[in-house]
Amino acid sequence: MHKVIFDTDPGIDDAMALLFLHRHPDVDLIGVTTVFGNAPLDITTRNALFLKQQWGMTAPVAKGAGVTFDPSRPEGHWPTFIHGEDGLGNIGVPEEIDLPLDPRPAHHFIIDTVKENPGEVTLIAVGRMTNLALALREDPDFAALVKNVVIMGGAFDINGNVSPAAEANIHGDPEAADLVFTAPWRVTVVGLDVTTRTVMTAKFMDEMAKEGGAPVQLLSDLSQFYIEFYTQRTGDGMVVHDACACVYLTNPELFQTRSGAVRVVCGGIADGQTIQKPDGVGFPPGNWDGHPSQLVCTDIEPERVLSVIRSAVVQGERG
Amino acid sequence: MHKVIFDTDPGIDDAMALLFLHRHPDVDLIGVTTVFGNAPLDITTRNALFLKQQWGMTAPVAKGAGVTFDPSRPEGHWPTFIHGEDGLGNIGVPEEIDLPLDPRPAHHFIIDTVKENPGEVTLIAVGRMTNLALALREDPDFAALVKNVVIMGGAFDINGNVSPAAEANIHGDPEAADLVFTAPWRVTVVGLDVTTRTVMTAKFMDEMAKEGGAPVQLLSDLSQFYIEFYTQRTGDGMVVHDACACVYLTNPELFQTRSGAVRVVCGGIADGQTIQKPDGVGFPPGNWDGHPSQLVCTDIEPERVLSVIRSAVVQGERG
Repeated sequence: MHKVIFDTDPGIDDAMALLFLHRHPDVDLIGVTTVFGNAPLDITTRNALFLKQQWGMTAPVAKGAGVTFDPSRPEGHWPTFIHGEDGLGNIGVPEEIDLPLDPRPAHHFIIDTVKENPGEVTLIAVGRMTNLALALREDPDFAALVKNVVIMGGAFDINGNVSPAAEANIHGDPEAADLVFTAPWRVTVVGLDVTTRTVMTAKFMDEMAKEGGAPVQLLSDLSQFYIEFYTQRTGDGMVVHDACACVYLTNPELFQTRSGAVRVVCGGIADGQTIQKPDGVGFPPGNWDGHPSQLVCTDIEPERVLSVIRSAVVQGERG
Repeated sequence: MHKVIFDTDPGIDDAMALLFLHRHPDVDLIGVTTVFGNAPLDITTRNALFLKQQWGMTAPVAKGAGVTFDPSRPEGHWPTFIHGEDGLGNIGVPEEIDLPLDPRPAHHFIIDTVKENPGEVTLIAVGRMTNLALALREDPDFAALVKNVVIMGGAFDINGNVSPAAEANIHGDPEAADLVFTAPWRVTVVGLDVTTRTVMTAKFMDEMAKEGGAPVQLLSDLSQFYIEFYTQRTGDGMVVHDACACVYLTNPELFQTRSGAVRVVCGGIADGQTIQKPDGVGFPPGNWDGHPSQLVCTDIEPERVLSVIRSAVVQGERG
């Protein structure tokens, strides 16, 4: 069983990833931490509680960061044209959810939970890296107790999506991401290089909903707004960014990776760009030296990844 | 006939490119301008005069910039391990060459020559972009009178060579390159994406020297140091960066290009990185907006490019 803390900003593709982790038989979801990103923090936190309630999840939800690691950065814009005003496709999420939050801020919850399960916890982070960076600043030693970190974010051999240089999650808090990539733990980066090739059609979602019962029907309902956005860009269907990171946890054999130190550009026209120095390639001394090699996903088997997602999210009905 | 001003920092692959332009039957080389880069300016200028003398060239040589466009940038290191202490593979170039320089600084020579040949001159720049930037600052209107600009520099979908982000020519003067890419003229960028795939073996060079007589034998002699450097990196042979830009002039059909605005990162860990915003891809408003679309080479036919080089440099003996 993979013990997982899911750090998330739901967010529509976050919701799919959350249902995947909740229902996958090999995953023990032991915590959900929220962060700003696809919507303001109060909304992403409310949405996490809403999905917990709707899907009968037991994992505690801890509220995290609402602003960037460097608080002097100007606030960004909320991508309401992708995730809706409510962050879940304008399905009418209630203002308040009658479920308690964990009393700790997310980064304390992460540190405590990792220390209670030394060497066993995988952190899957699919929003801004702010909570992870705050945890590293608070207790740098806890990094060594984390089993693995899997990130959805970045763009390496292709353009970004919020600028030609940068992907949204990293661009939203570059200083935090740079700290996370250079910390002494093993990070696997699932970025646009592979997620943009992983497109779930509206028909695939419909069939999954029919097979998976009410929980998957809710996922389908809240995804329609997002499908509409991506259909204008990709043809027919939605790019399942965040679920790809979760499939890497359970099925790493469906990905190809490249090893090397990863840094994030902070400031200037390339603000938020992720750049890897591949191991084994010679360069003059520079800014990547002395940082740990991380794994960057360079290829994916999209059809098989979509099958893994489908199997997991309909699992609860079958099992 | 292509009227060409060649802006260069010889430099070993520069020497091959110069011989190509001198001997190609469809090229009228009307000027050579020098810049710092592969060696200090005094050495690259001396080398240009030396090659002019050895090869019996008639084009005037004008001395250009010895420091970056923004003079506050710290001086870089000279790549003596690639081009030798003398910039031409330590073949023993005389200290002084008894040939006159054009009295004008390179950027004045460029402006004057373009104005005398409006719409007819292609600028091929294979070193730092400093001379072109100085010309643009001195007389922004002259850009409209240039036929085409072809650049050897940059790295787009792959790593750089002086850092994971940046290629040497652009990294050596990022502010100059950004001005050149965003000026109102048509630039084609022949970068590492294609040049590093174009490797001339030592055997190929030997055969070319036998066929091409004394001038090509000199090219072969001065290339041995460079071949030694690249053989340790690529197997057997030299990457013919600068000649690729010249072949683009005569045989653009051997390249594939992508259109879109190009900017250069100035400062930070990605200093000198080239980033293109491909036309037709949607991004939020940003730093690439309002700048002209330029052509970036994304693919090349290396074997055919090498054949074109060979035909041109042995041409003088045959013709």
